[in-house]
Amino acid sequence: MVKLGFGSFGDSFSVGSLKSYLAEFIATLLFVFAGVGSAISYNKLTSDAALDPAGLVAVAVAHAFALFVGVSIAANISGGHLNPAVTFGLAIGGNISILTGIFYWIAQCLGSIVACLLLKFVTNGESVPTHGVASGMSAIEGVVMEIIITFALVYTVYATAADPKKGSLGIIAPIAIGFIVGANILAAGPFSGGSMNPARSFGPAVVSGDFSENWIYWVGPLIGGGLAGLVYGDIFIGSYAPVQVSQDYV
Amino acid sequence: MVKLGFGSFGDSFSVGSLKSYLAEFIATLLFVFAGVGSAISYNKLTSDAALDPAGLVAVAVAHAFALFVGVSIAANISGGHLNPAVTFGLAIGGNISILTGIFYWIAQCLGSIVACLLLKFVTNGESVPTHGVASGMSAIEGVVMEIIITFALVYTVYATAADPKKGSLGIIAPIAIGFIVGANILAAGPFSGGSMNPARSFGPAVVSGDFSENWIYWVGPLIGGGLAGLVYGDIFIGSYAPVQVSQDYV
Amino acid sequence: MVKLGFGSFGDSFSVGSLKSYLAEFIATLLFVFAGVGSAISYNKLTSDAALDPAGLVAVAVAHAFALFVGVSIAANISGGHLNPAVTFGLAIGGNISILTGIFYWIAQCLGSIVACLLLKFVTNGESVPTHGVASGMSAIEGVVMEIIITFALVYTVYATAADPKKGSLGIIAPIAIGFIVGANILAAGPFSGGSMNPARSFGPAVVSGDFSENWIYWVGPLIGGGLAGLVYGDIFIGSYAPVQVSQDYV
Amino acid sequence: MVKLGFGSFGDSFSVGSLKSYLAEFIATLLFVFAGVGSAISYNKLTSDAALDPAGLVAVAVAHAFALFVGVSIAANISGGHLNPAVTFGLAIGGNISILTGIFYWIAQCLGSIVACLLLKFVTNGESVPTHGVASGMSAIEGVVMEIIITFALVYTVYATAADPKKGSLGIIAPIAIGFIVGANILAAGPFSGGSMNPARSFGPAVVSGDFSENWIYWVGPLIGGGLAGLVYGDIFIGSYAPVQVSQDYV
Repeated sequence: MVKLGFGSFGDSFSVGSLKSYLAEFIATLLFVFAGVGSAISYNKLTSDAALDPAGLVAVAVAHAFALFVGVSIAANISGGHLNPAVTFGLAIGGNISILTGIFYWIAQCLGSIVACLLLKFVTNGESVPTHGVASGMSAIEGVVMEIIITFALVYTVYATAADPKKGSLGIIAPIAIGFIVGANILAAGPFSGGSMNPARSFGPAVVSGDFSENWIYWVGPLIGGGLAGLVYGDIFIGSYAPVQVSQDYV
Repeated sequence: MVKLGFGSFGDSFSVGSLKSYLAEFIATLLFVFAGVGSAISYNKLTSDAALDPAGLVAVAVAHAFALFVGVSIAANISGGHLNPAVTFGLAIGGNISILTGIFYWIAQCLGSIVACLLLKFVTNGESVPTHGVASGMSAIEGVVMEIIITFALVYTVYATAADPKKGSLGIIAPIAIGFIVGANILAAGPFSGGSMNPARSFGPAVVSGDFSENWIYWVGPLIGGGLAGLVYGDIFIGSYAPVQVSQDYV
Repeated sequence: MVKLGFGSFGDSFSVGSLKSYLAEFIATLLFVFAGVGSAISYNKLTSDAALDPAGLVAVAVAHAFALFVGVSIAANISGGHLNPAVTFGLAIGGNISILTGIFYWIAQCLGSIVACLLLKFVTNGESVPTHGVASGMSAIEGVVMEIIITFALVYTVYATAADPKKGSLGIIAPIAIGFIVGANILAAGPFSGGSMNPARSFGPAVVSGDFSENWIYWVGPLIGGGLAGLVYGDIFIGSYAPVQVSQDYV
Repeated sequence: MVKLGFGSFGDSFSVGSLKSYLAEFIATLLFVFAGVGSAISYNKLTSDAALDPAGLVAVAVAHAFALFVGVSIAANISGGHLNPAVTFGLAIGGNISILTGIFYWIAQCLGSIVACLLLKFVTNGESVPTHGVASGMSAIEGVVMEIIITFALVYTVYATAADPKKGSLGIIAPIAIGFIVGANILAAGPFSGGSMNPARSFGPAVVSGDFSENWIYWVGPLIGGGLAGLVYGDIFIGSYAPVQVSQDYV
């Protein structure tokens, strides 16, 4: 059951909401800086050689650690999405309004663009690598790969952070959210790149001017994140609702 | 002391139980997708070269991170087994009935099979590697290796998650459960493959059609998991029981 | 709003303060020993080859793990800074007085120097590598890189440890603080070295006698840390203050 | 101030004590199996090549993950030492009696020996590598290296686990204890091997029959662990004592 709500303009421009957008901007910027930066580092160290297993570990660990931290530093302010697919998946389950979600998307994409511009400067003009599917793979295979791994990410966000019955799992939720991205990059890196995050892919596309495959990293993650919101929200959280409502009447 | 109980059909088909099976299916699917996917990634990056230390790190970290997350996302619903050997080890200690356990096994194996089918599709038909012992090793050496490392895994499940006196250790239990698998793959990978999980080995066997050594990854893990249930359940948890019973009478 | 306070001599020489300086000295020593030691290890294993991706992973993981532990072991005594940029960033937000902060700086720099002297001895005289920007990069690019990544580090310190509303995030704060350094080294290592810490860079400079680029690792981190203190302290923590004051009157 | 106490035979043979010895035996066995196993794996994958940076990462991560888990699974039963240097350091601070400590040492060393015997079997007779200093290094340099890194380990045990004022740090203590060993192996591996644990070094020495440098890994770790017990116990915990005593009188 889709629980999308549009929201009111007043709520989306409250001081708390503006701070949330800033927190999303900063956290996404710092996450993308470390993540994309690790890919540039690999190119620098190897003079643009093809990715090897050690490089894949470096890139996966950088994304895992940086996303864990990025989620942590925004968690108490904006909820720590850093990712339009996470925001969309949570909107599907009624955890954030469409209007506020749109501002989250803008903040996340701006954070990613600024991160890539900064990387361009501090690396003395190294090229910023964009996401794309491996040669020989079709776009639809890339889309399905991104659907599956983003489903894993947003399902993890639901189970460890958004579920009202998460209990003490919430303490380690940011680590789980970061590490599922690390694990999925180790699996998907050589095929679809392992984005799981339209903002993560959008910044490099803007700065490099190459949007040729960028749509894959919007379509795949948004479908995957939306599905996770539907499945987890309906089947697991959905069934809590009556109990919670009845408690309100006591 | 084996505490196996058969259980009732009613319990095994309650709404809560059906959700547990679904949670096991999804979590095992996502774990196997990342784990097996990391092995396919290595083959892709190296054009099927023999495993090297960087590749072993990649595969071990992918399994460690993905199992930690898989356990986390199912913990509050199904207990987060994702592994027939864990389910069996917990059944030995009386923590789950045989009947419910059988449905867990089915859900876990289905999750693994679907994960491998999806991998086959999204990687454009790359072959799905199966577990097998290194050339020159005997099957019995592989079985004993799997017994020892699965004992470590299920003992960890007991000590950090199933033990009623676990205290705050329960907060980091999913991390410990994931990371012992990572550590054991670093030790056992080049010998038995380091499965510790019949479902993890079964999916690739089904999808590749190669069952030649699959029995090793049922016999070894089930013996190891069962032993852990006996040792931890009897010696450590077993001794709590009288105290708990007497408290019931107070 | 800068909240710097000078502090009193009495406070800075209390028994508690002296223990804090000792805790900073020991924790920084142990962190730098492992961090710089990992770089020396790489040189030893490869006979001083140029850094490769596996080596970058080794150095990043060593810093991530060692800083996490270093922060943990000093957290309850000194707050676990281990870094003049962290101390400065916290002073900007009024969390430590200038005078006490100066003694923290001295303790941190001494810890780093002693770590490098010990490394020189136990490695049988291996040279201690200093931080410097990659050839072809300008100093200003190095400074900006260090500003950004130190901003990330000190912002993380604020959001997970210094924020009075951090809640249960505080439990995993030391891990987040260590891991953002690991992620940033994976991104910045081949460009600026990824210091984020004037003390970490100062010890090797003293022991090797090479101060040629050391200023970069004071200017960059102190600007980045100060900015994080301003941004987080003013925008996020700053707004809590009135509420807290009014609670004092209740 | 050394707080060593001999202890009574009754205490050391209570049911609780016997369970502690068993927990130490099992946890040390599983830790050494994964740790030494990872070194054997490297030799297998590379046909006994010299250690390279990717291999160092593999060995360090295996020890870090396995020690974290080993400490976790024994924490609630025996305190999770798994290491004669930790037991000695805690005895120095009065946290365990000499007599009980001796049985801990025996359990730890037996666990390590059995782990190495099992490794010998399951790897089809691969040789079990022993600790030794790098060629060109003196034994005294190895001893000092082990003193420093074991000091770091036992200081971490004190600050995060044994300190009665540790607070919520205790939740992540096993991770910190495991990860400081991982970080120190990345620094010390190519020089002293990075043992920090006489039992970890003793098992391979027994099974390979090569005790030529084994004394280094008793002398260094025991001095380092003892020093940590003195410094942390006296300076930090020591000062809590009067307050605690006076609270007893209230």
